[in-house]
Amino acid sequence: MNTKPIVLILAGGKGSRFRSRTPKALHPILGKPMAALVLDAVRALRPSRTFAVVGDRREEFARSFAGAGLELIRQKEDLGTGGAVLSARHALALKAGRDVLVVPSNMPLLTGPTLKALLRTHRKREYSVTVLCAPGAPLEIPPAGSGGAVCAFKARDLLKALSKLRRQGRRPFPLNDVVRLLAGSGRSGVYRARKAVELFEVGTRYDLALAAAFLRVRKIRALALKGVSFLDPSSAWIDLDVRVGEDTVIHPSVIIEGNSRIGRDCRVHPFVYIRNARIGDRVRIFGPTDIEDCTLEDDSRAGPFSRLRAKTVVKPGARVGNFVEMKNTVFGSRSRALHLSYLGDSEVGEDVNIGAGTITCNYDGVRKNRTTIGDGVFIGSGTELVAPVKVGKGAYVAAGSTITKDVSPEALAVARARQVEKTGWVRRKRR
Amino acid sequence: MNTKPIVLILAGGKGSRFRSRTPKALHPILGKPMAALVLDAVRALRPSRTFAVVGDRREEFARSFAGAGLELIRQKEDLGTGGAVLSARHALALKAGRDVLVVPSNMPLLTGPTLKALLRTHRKREYSVTVLCAPGAPLEIPPAGSGGAVCAFKARDLLKALSKLRRQGRRPFPLNDVVRLLAGSGRSGVYRARKAVELFEVGTRYDLALAAAFLRVRKIRALALKGVSFLDPSSAWIDLDVRVGEDTVIHPSVIIEGNSRIGRDCRVHPFVYIRNARIGDRVRIFGPTDIEDCTLEDDSRAGPFSRLRAKTVVKPGARVGNFVEMKNTVFGSRSRALHLSYLGDSEVGEDVNIGAGTITCNYDGVRKNRTTIGDGVFIGSGTELVAPVKVGKGAYVAAGSTITKDVSPEALAVARARQVEKTGWVRRKRR
Amino acid sequence: MNTKPIVLILAGGKGSRFRSRTPKALHPILGKPMAALVLDAVRALRPSRTFAVVGDRREEFARSFAGAGLELIRQKEDLGTGGAVLSARHALALKAGRDVLVVPSNMPLLTGPTLKALLRTHRKREYSVTVLCAPGAPLEIPPAGSGGAVCAFKARDLLKALSKLRRQGRRPFPLNDVVRLLAGSGRSGVYRARKAVELFEVGTRYDLALAAAFLRVRKIRALALKGVSFLDPSSAWIDLDVRVGEDTVIHPSVIIEGNSRIGRDCRVHPFVYIRNARIGDRVRIFGPTDIEDCTLEDDSRAGPFSRLRAKTVVKPGARVGNFVEMKNTVFGSRSRALHLSYLGDSEVGEDVNIGAGTITCNYDGVRKNRTTIGDGVFIGSGTELVAPVKVGKGAYVAAGSTITKDVSPEALAVARARQVEKTGWVRRKRR
Repeated sequence: MNTKPIVLILAGGKGSRFRSRTPKALHPILGKPMAALVLDAVRALRPSRTFAVVGDRREEFARSFAGAGLELIRQKEDLGTGGAVLSARHALALKAGRDVLVVPSNMPLLTGPTLKALLRTHRKREYSVTVLCAPGAPLEIPPAGSGGAVCAFKARDLLKALSKLRRQGRRPFPLNDVVRLLAGSGRSGVYRARKAVELFEVGTRYDLALAAAFLRVRKIRALALKGVSFLDPSSAWIDLDVRVGEDTVIHPSVIIEGNSRIGRDCRVHPFVYIRNARIGDRVRIFGPTDIEDCTLEDDSRAGPFSRLRAKTVVKPGARVGNFVEMKNTVFGSRSRALHLSYLGDSEVGEDVNIGAGTITCNYDGVRKNRTTIGDGVFIGSGTELVAPVKVGKGAYVAAGSTITKDVSPEALAVARARQVEKTGWVRRKRR
Repeated sequence: MNTKPIVLILAGGKGSRFRSRTPKALHPILGKPMAALVLDAVRALRPSRTFAVVGDRREEFARSFAGAGLELIRQKEDLGTGGAVLSARHALALKAGRDVLVVPSNMPLLTGPTLKALLRTHRKREYSVTVLCAPGAPLEIPPAGSGGAVCAFKARDLLKALSKLRRQGRRPFPLNDVVRLLAGSGRSGVYRARKAVELFEVGTRYDLALAAAFLRVRKIRALALKGVSFLDPSSAWIDLDVRVGEDTVIHPSVIIEGNSRIGRDCRVHPFVYIRNARIGDRVRIFGPTDIEDCTLEDDSRAGPFSRLRAKTVVKPGARVGNFVEMKNTVFGSRSRALHLSYLGDSEVGEDVNIGAGTITCNYDGVRKNRTTIGDGVFIGSGTELVAPVKVGKGAYVAAGSTITKDVSPEALAVARARQVEKTGWVRRKRR
Repeated sequence: MNTKPIVLILAGGKGSRFRSRTPKALHPILGKPMAALVLDAVRALRPSRTFAVVGDRREEFARSFAGAGLELIRQKEDLGTGGAVLSARHALALKAGRDVLVVPSNMPLLTGPTLKALLRTHRKREYSVTVLCAPGAPLEIPPAGSGGAVCAFKARDLLKALSKLRRQGRRPFPLNDVVRLLAGSGRSGVYRARKAVELFEVGTRYDLALAAAFLRVRKIRALALKGVSFLDPSSAWIDLDVRVGEDTVIHPSVIIEGNSRIGRDCRVHPFVYIRNARIGDRVRIFGPTDIEDCTLEDDSRAGPFSRLRAKTVVKPGARVGNFVEMKNTVFGSRSRALHLSYLGDSEVGEDVNIGAGTITCNYDGVRKNRTTIGDGVFIGSGTELVAPVKVGKGAYVAAGSTITKDVSPEALAVARARQVEKTGWVRRKRR
């Protein structure tokens, strides 16, 4: 009785009401495919094996669930939920002494404790089949044609019922036919979920958004109880896997996605969009700012109007400012690039001042080249650094220069034209 | 009986509770004047003529409803809703054999099917007057002093009642006085709307926002059922006339206004603001980005931090990037302008690379001039193109140049100063 | 009986459920510390003195409430709400003939009228203690262990009860023990609040956000009734002290914080973030734009993608555009800086045209220097102005110049290299 159950996730639905080329079960909710949320819930049962019955997009599932321990079973035709279970019969036959939990992939609000309680009831009462139902539902097997989507079975009894229906030549048929057959012949019952919302079934894209709204509140509330301040939970969008440290304040209209980590004591101001970034402690980010696949170390600052792209590391205490973009750049401790600059494929030392309008010309039409700037350098405003180029430690580049050759440490580099004046030119022109 | 009805929209309210110089009926909801939503609903009746009784801002109405088939009747004094109908008596007298539907302009949640059902009941029962009321309301004419705002009348009976009240010298008076007079003398009844929300009356600007919130959900839900994914419907703002294609994904905090069309399979990321734009298929837009009165063709990409202004066309596969503004510019297929650039009044060919910090100097203090850039051109970073100027096909402009003369095809153009270095300058300076 | 009451705000809670180093009572709601909202409510009573019992962060309270007329009493140990009142006994003893209102600092939805009505009941019935309770609550003193958080006492009776409990050596103890002791010995009663929401107690950071959501609706509704249009109240975030003039339209996703004033007939478009700014009449602000500690005068325009920082004044009719940052700058009437510019520490006259890509080089690595630009100047695109520098009235600076010396009025200044062309260079290069 205490053996681990088998889980069967039904993910073969085409979701024609979704009007989508992507399988319904792979549509994301807060950064995870819907089926992955169901998979998270069933993990609480510690199943011996977890199967998903999928349709004709097997590869997409394989890609989405690589390494997740999910075994895929291809369902050749759409033969209803009963047919989907039938297509897993060989897998089940190997574990006929076990319990099988059948779960559809479109119930992303199911929780582990509910599934565990369902299985516990199923085992305690020694039912052939136990159906999960809503809190106030009658304590009997749902009638033909109705839901009854989440069920625990004795594998052996399930297999018997399936082969009986198969002999009768029924196809397609709903899982509920199986349930009713077992209910007629054997011991059966229901388990009532504590919260009706857990039985919410996603049928349309709008339902998907409703499920996301529910999970979003759950996520933000959980973070708030761990010491994160959300000034306006209703306009914050935080993916399920995001982690945020204590005493960090999230202002309204902030979006944090993917596998992002935000440290302690940070402030994330409105209109910030973060994806897959590591943010240290005491970091301040002013929006609008876009941060993707990069790292901001402790006490650094970014924004407003910063764009930090892949493979950028902003070192402790450094500051990135208005209309500044960085890509594949290591930006040294306490360095500052505060206005209208583009740093790409570059390495910037410590205590560097990047003047307004500085541009690393990293692309020459053929390849990308690197710019290296030493510690303590001062780059004057309106400077182009034509890569590959190195500016030595402590050097000073005059404003308005186009630097095409390396600059020696401690040197002054100038590359600009002399200023001339034509007196009274405007007056003459006007005439 | 099957003759087309006349419709009378009461739009003369000053809306003093609005505290606005704009007439209440012209305040917009999701991109349309409130009265236009009522007009949309009454169109389901295919009325022979549609009148609106307006106050002293006739011209504003005429401008808002040009070409909409709405005939305006000026109400000289504010004499209540009854007085408003009275001011239309000459128009009604011409069609005395018809039915008249009277609708206030502040009920923007009314739907065509409800008005049709009201008219059907009115005709079937051969009432003199039929009043629209709430789902659970009693089946009798509302008492004096109450609402009863939407009514179907027999025109002849309405005219008789109006002249009777006029002889009594009552002014101002509510439409309900007319209704009650007819109810006393003739056949009258009510029709109960299916949904209470349809009777929602906008009295204040806050009510207007509540109506917008309701219509917004209706709009987004309709798009979702047609195959558009809204990750967060609660922070998406989509005007009523916007169209979006299948499998397009709208992220949180996206605003699409006016007469915009978005194609299939697009992705619109957070903090994008689109007005009156045409977006092709498979376009990706990263926010913050502002797109107004322009076209992004198939497979193009924009943002984050792009600003695309009037008369700009981004051709297929082209990319516009960070801190880049375009105005009145055709930007050729597969061309790229990815960083800190301003292209105004320009024509850019195919496969062009616009370096970071490129600026078309289109304004010389007197007039706007054009910049033309041929196919395959490479513009180095930090370049000013002083218009009018042409850069020939395949030419190469060196970084940091100010281009004032045309550049020949395949030529290299350079306009920058030589770099000089003062060794040890910083060290000396420091002392 | 008509003497002014004393008020005691209990603000010593550590808020361990907040998981914060900041005292719970100082966590902000819509720009004000939670305790300040309670203070606002009790001011309706015109108390003779208002005390707050605080914990070990006295200085933070002193800073937050400087000049607010709040007297702080340090509570040395956490001895429950009863202990908190006990620690104020010396202050109360000086006014033993008065009434004392005890209010916890975590009930930010309390209103003045409710507290006044509580006090009125308390005095009329001559109770020793009167407890505020929920609308439907039984008309008796709440049982031991329950809330009863807001109470009016006769000071003398409160002091007696406190010393009795003290003699019994009870510590810590809840205020409810005091209430029940008085209820047993003297006259006591309850007053039922009109709205249950007023009794909402903030226990966690999530509760704080719920309170903010409630107050936000109240604030936005109040502004809407005064003639401000909010297209989407659900995504507008307006701090409690913000003022907005009639006929101003606030688009979705706008955030206005602190001590900001917005004039009449303005339009604030999506993704605008304003803090402590003065905005005149008929100003249009396009987002994303960030405005902090500065002034936009009548008929000026900013954005999209503008960043206006401290001590900036944009004069009437001036326009600030895309990717333009200003700091400590006076920008003259009708002047325009529309693209990719940085103006810092500068004074710009009237009718000036700042070309795209203009940069004031205000920092030389050691100090900040000023730039002065006279009336009617034309600065060509891609210009660096190396401060300190002055450009005289009516002067013209050619595009692409680096200006290091002052420019005379009406003069043309040029500082750029001559353009040279290498014919066929690209073709040769290709080979």
